[in-house]
Amino acid sequence: MKKFMDESFLLNTESAKELFNLFAKEEPIFDWHCHLSAKEIFENKPADDLCELWLAGDHYKWRLMRGAGIDEKYITGDAEPFEKFKAFAKALSLAPGNPLFHWSHLELQRYFGIYDVLSEDTAEKIWKESKTKIQSGGFTPRELIERSNVFALCTTDDPADSLEWHIKLRESGFPVMVLPAFRPDKAINAETHDFSAYLSALGSASGIHIDSFEKLKEALKKRLLFFKSLGAVACDQSVSSIPFAPSDESEVEAVFQKLSKNEAVSDDALEKYKFALLSFLGKEYAKNGLAMELHLGAMRNNNSRAFSALGADAGFDSIDDPQQAQKLSRFLDALDKESLLPKTILFNLNPKDNFVLASMLGNFQSAEAESKLQFGSAWWFNDNIDGMNAQLRALANLGVLGCFVGMITDSRSFLSYPRHEYFRRILCNLLGSWVEDGLFPDDKKMLERIVRGICFENSKKYFLN
Amino acid sequence: MKKFMDESFLLNTESAKELFNLFAKEEPIFDWHCHLSAKEIFENKPADDLCELWLAGDHYKWRLMRGAGIDEKYITGDAEPFEKFKAFAKALSLAPGNPLFHWSHLELQRYFGIYDVLSEDTAEKIWKESKTKIQSGGFTPRELIERSNVFALCTTDDPADSLEWHIKLRESGFPVMVLPAFRPDKAINAETHDFSAYLSALGSASGIHIDSFEKLKEALKKRLLFFKSLGAVACDQSVSSIPFAPSDESEVEAVFQKLSKNEAVSDDALEKYKFALLSFLGKEYAKNGLAMELHLGAMRNNNSRAFSALGADAGFDSIDDPQQAQKLSRFLDALDKESLLPKTILFNLNPKDNFVLASMLGNFQSAEAESKLQFGSAWWFNDNIDGMNAQLRALANLGVLGCFVGMITDSRSFLSYPRHEYFRRILCNLLGSWVEDGLFPDDKKMLERIVRGICFENSKKYFLN
Amino acid sequence: MKKFMDESFLLNTESAKELFNLFAKEEPIFDWHCHLSAKEIFENKPADDLCELWLAGDHYKWRLMRGAGIDEKYITGDAEPFEKFKAFAKALSLAPGNPLFHWSHLELQRYFGIYDVLSEDTAEKIWKESKTKIQSGGFTPRELIERSNVFALCTTDDPADSLEWHIKLRESGFPVMVLPAFRPDKAINAETHDFSAYLSALGSASGIHIDSFEKLKEALKKRLLFFKSLGAVACDQSVSSIPFAPSDESEVEAVFQKLSKNEAVSDDALEKYKFALLSFLGKEYAKNGLAMELHLGAMRNNNSRAFSALGADAGFDSIDDPQQAQKLSRFLDALDKESLLPKTILFNLNPKDNFVLASMLGNFQSAEAESKLQFGSAWWFNDNIDGMNAQLRALANLGVLGCFVGMITDSRSFLSYPRHEYFRRILCNLLGSWVEDGLFPDDKKMLERIVRGICFENSKKYFLN
Repeated sequence: MKKFMDESFLLNTESAKELFNLFAKEEPIFDWHCHLSAKEIFENKPADDLCELWLAGDHYKWRLMRGAGIDEKYITGDAEPFEKFKAFAKALSLAPGNPLFHWSHLELQRYFGIYDVLSEDTAEKIWKESKTKIQSGGFTPRELIERSNVFALCTTDDPADSLEWHIKLRESGFPVMVLPAFRPDKAINAETHDFSAYLSALGSASGIHIDSFEKLKEALKKRLLFFKSLGAVACDQSVSSIPFAPSDESEVEAVFQKLSKNEAVSDDALEKYKFALLSFLGKEYAKNGLAMELHLGAMRNNNSRAFSALGADAGFDSIDDPQQAQKLSRFLDALDKESLLPKTILFNLNPKDNFVLASMLGNFQSAEAESKLQFGSAWWFNDNIDGMNAQLRALANLGVLGCFVGMITDSRSFLSYPRHEYFRRILCNLLGSWVEDGLFPDDKKMLERIVRGICFENSKKYFLN
Repeated sequence: MKKFMDESFLLNTESAKELFNLFAKEEPIFDWHCHLSAKEIFENKPADDLCELWLAGDHYKWRLMRGAGIDEKYITGDAEPFEKFKAFAKALSLAPGNPLFHWSHLELQRYFGIYDVLSEDTAEKIWKESKTKIQSGGFTPRELIERSNVFALCTTDDPADSLEWHIKLRESGFPVMVLPAFRPDKAINAETHDFSAYLSALGSASGIHIDSFEKLKEALKKRLLFFKSLGAVACDQSVSSIPFAPSDESEVEAVFQKLSKNEAVSDDALEKYKFALLSFLGKEYAKNGLAMELHLGAMRNNNSRAFSALGADAGFDSIDDPQQAQKLSRFLDALDKESLLPKTILFNLNPKDNFVLASMLGNFQSAEAESKLQFGSAWWFNDNIDGMNAQLRALANLGVLGCFVGMITDSRSFLSYPRHEYFRRILCNLLGSWVEDGLFPDDKKMLERIVRGICFENSKKYFLN
Repeated sequence: MKKFMDESFLLNTESAKELFNLFAKEEPIFDWHCHLSAKEIFENKPADDLCELWLAGDHYKWRLMRGAGIDEKYITGDAEPFEKFKAFAKALSLAPGNPLFHWSHLELQRYFGIYDVLSEDTAEKIWKESKTKIQSGGFTPRELIERSNVFALCTTDDPADSLEWHIKLRESGFPVMVLPAFRPDKAINAETHDFSAYLSALGSASGIHIDSFEKLKEALKKRLLFFKSLGAVACDQSVSSIPFAPSDESEVEAVFQKLSKNEAVSDDALEKYKFALLSFLGKEYAKNGLAMELHLGAMRNNNSRAFSALGADAGFDSIDDPQQAQKLSRFLDALDKESLLPKTILFNLNPKDNFVLASMLGNFQSAEAESKLQFGSAWWFNDNIDGMNAQLRALANLGVLGCFVGMITDSRSFLSYPRHEYFRRILCNLLGSWVEDGLFPDDKKMLERIVRGICFENSKKYFLN
């Protein structure tokens, strides 16, 4: 029996251990998609305790606690910090196989040097010990980032964002590259919020009065160039499925006019709008050498009562199951026809689509990059051992695994970097098992190129070259 | 090499064996969803032979035999019992990896003490030996239930059922709890049978003349309360996918009027009717503290010729592939909005949807129960090693495995209880592999809570508290 | 650590090795679906080098190279043969887990006796060594077929094909059975090409002037009988999903008239046409004892620019994700109702549908054959270790694995026969793991029947009896 989460964690063969220790462990991190706050990095305030670090904003943990029947008081309510922490410990001890079990213990080990198993019985001891550690320093955002060997990170920012904190950060001399990323979700998913107000905000940010679809595009383009001037290399959009509905300009303009007044439009009209806007953006990304990330398959805010009480991103999202193949293919082809398909990364939330997306890549590869089209790492509900293995295997079977740009945290927490270690262990374990089983040669030169590439070098080349 | 199906069957590590032997093996069975006949339990007639026990009504076995090219004469036809048994043995020997291979041998081992491998060569020996055993006693329905350490079981009953046999059973002093369960499929899936005749039967049972949708709801509610008075704790419905089509009362009434005359209605009209009825029922379940089981994804009676000859449930059903996410989310939310979402168990027939359903749970959990929303155990075409592992892993990754209410047989046979053992072995093997690999701590207190919980305690608490 | 691809390749237990060596290794090959050219077999010209053998027409390899960012010049362009080969070697070394890694090395081992690992470093050595081997003989199409222990193979031929090369081959005394197979895709998928021209070609081949749907059916029937007279045993059609749209004859005639003039028709009209034609063909296959292969789930020619430049089958296809269950069920039932459902083999491209298709089989089995309905081996994007294991497990769980008709290459290359070995190793490894784990008895008689059956005997019986 292996010891619980020791140095051979997730590394089940000698080959796996060797690959991890030789080529993966020390590689820096390029976290090219996350939800960290540039403001918080700039302000650099230390945390109080593990409740703040773990439970203040992490909807993964809230969700686990609700599943264990814990009262909302101990989740997002007004219970005392330690009571919340203890309730989390109780829920966690019932959750073998949940990635939070490993993430939480990895964070205790790597940032606190705590190797105990968290449970109701040990909660108090761990609470106190972690509190002492936090008070002794090293737990500000910047310290946590630097302790984690981060080379660069990309935040996620609305086009209307002034990026003031990014500017201040650049001026601050913080040695880690903190880059903004362009996320025009509010412009695309116009029907989900107060679009009229959003257009005003975007108008102010861009200095363009947005009273037509043309002006919207102009404003977004202007912001995009501003983002690029501050180092942006990636643009992200989250849609359940890709729109594909070609139409003429006057149609789109008519839909825009309604949306801009927060009026309802038909599903078909909405799709025409979204297709027109997403196509436009994709081509602009291509012209500017920026990568397009497409996060596919989320179904958000499923619980009306909870949405009223807690708003978005509170743990009430799940996996959608649209048909993805046809429209995604037509969308990518529409851009490729004009030689304006950007570098594109497809993130998949529904594992049923792993093979569809991994096989889609091959339709549009070119010599512009090693795997210009990428299959994004296992995301959100797939960000676990099974999900990562499934993503890696789908990509390996259908594409060129050695060109993969690898892991991102997609996280809102400064303690999430061990997820890169988690991913690297899973990667090395998979490759190591192939070597051990005689399915891939024990050729260190080939393996080094592959492992270092996926851990760090590929993303650096893909985004920064 | 391990011996074929010995005491370590399905238990591949020391940890797995330990978990099974310490915490799973002796737990009683709460079989909270099956298709046993209360009448047969009451009448308690012994079986004649293995042909009667195995081949009289088990469409799983019929299906296997047809797949092996065996003539219908030896399946549902007039061949001699031993000839049928021998034909089954032949088919079985060609079916490695089919759960019937394990189920059949488990039943031979546990109920007959027979450890031979069944094949054409051994069929006669096993036939004779089993016949002798049956004649020496212990093979009546009640004896089989008691020999299987069953604490309670829930049958599946139409609202129009008088439950007379349940009443007699209660009066008989049979020590095992036999509870009715409310299955209003004939009321919901009105288009699939003689609905007019059904309304008469339901009218008779309820004493309510059903000439409107209101009266139908009233009748069902009355029957529901009657079922509850006889101990019902669960209500079950089988639909390929969940309806979601809000409409006003007059629309539903108009659809009902047509259906009540066995007239055809459009698919849209049908969905409005089904949504109205299923929403109503769900809220009544919530008011009465009853659990709602939703069996999703079956496509029934695919073979017209066979349906004419043999009727329903004869082995001609398969897996449907509708989109499940959107409507299921909206349906659950519609009930939750009114704070009338009952405890709900989602059973999934299409493995492509495992992650969709397991992630859906988290949208509607609450402190009403530990995992108020449950992901039902691997069902029917998934009731096998791969299907169970997939269900357990999906639930573990996305929810709280330790709160799972566990296994049911869903069976029509009194010999099916070893499927609980099968499930428990698979569960302990999975948990044991995690312990063995250092992915979960070897903490017996935590593991005992999880294993005993899933095997028995969680379901007892979920349904009976 | 096992050595890279040695004699125990893919065989991870003693049982697996034993099964492979005793029952699988020496079985002949019945490659009942491939894309080899009868003309090339007849003409029997030797290849020049590995570039010709590997890169002249293999879109799998082209796709891999594009994924590695290699310029089209080195793929389908005018680079020197060795430069192309070296570029392929570079791409391959980045592709652990891709089946091409194994296929390529298997081909080097089996046909060339080369056991080196192909990489940029070894490319030149392997190029020279393989060239010497090719020059020393044994590399003509017929020699490669005979060296591969092929008993019979079925090509894929358009109904308009004269089959002249098949006729010549029969007369040539080549000892391996080379049978034509009927592939009426151009008749069915009328909207994808110049249908008017095709009808002329089919008219010439059949001697029937095709000016009506009736005449089209008559012409196809005539060709079908001609194919049968030359030994055809199987008919193949590739559709993303099965059409089901019953209509009356006049409707179909009207659609045909438009299609025959290359006019556009609505999707609904097209489906009526396809359903009418595919039903007709299926029944004709049944009347003639021919097997119907249905290749489901491909989405072809996704890249418009590449299609213009390179045409079809150039590596720009991927996996579609239609709903399959309902229409496939209704289509099969429509034929079965008339007792004219032929032997049918369902090939699945989207792994999400493995359980849907494997469970579909059971709806229509009969005593006409051992598994009259078959789940075709893992195909194209699933033709790899994971895909094969998934297909074998789905079939084993839901059907009768021992009646499976097994592997086909589906290939355009004379070097692809080691894929049968690949499949057999995976099969024996799976069965061996079950024996090793005590999940299936170590009964050599039962195992021999199963292994030899799947490797060769079942297909011989299914197609030729």
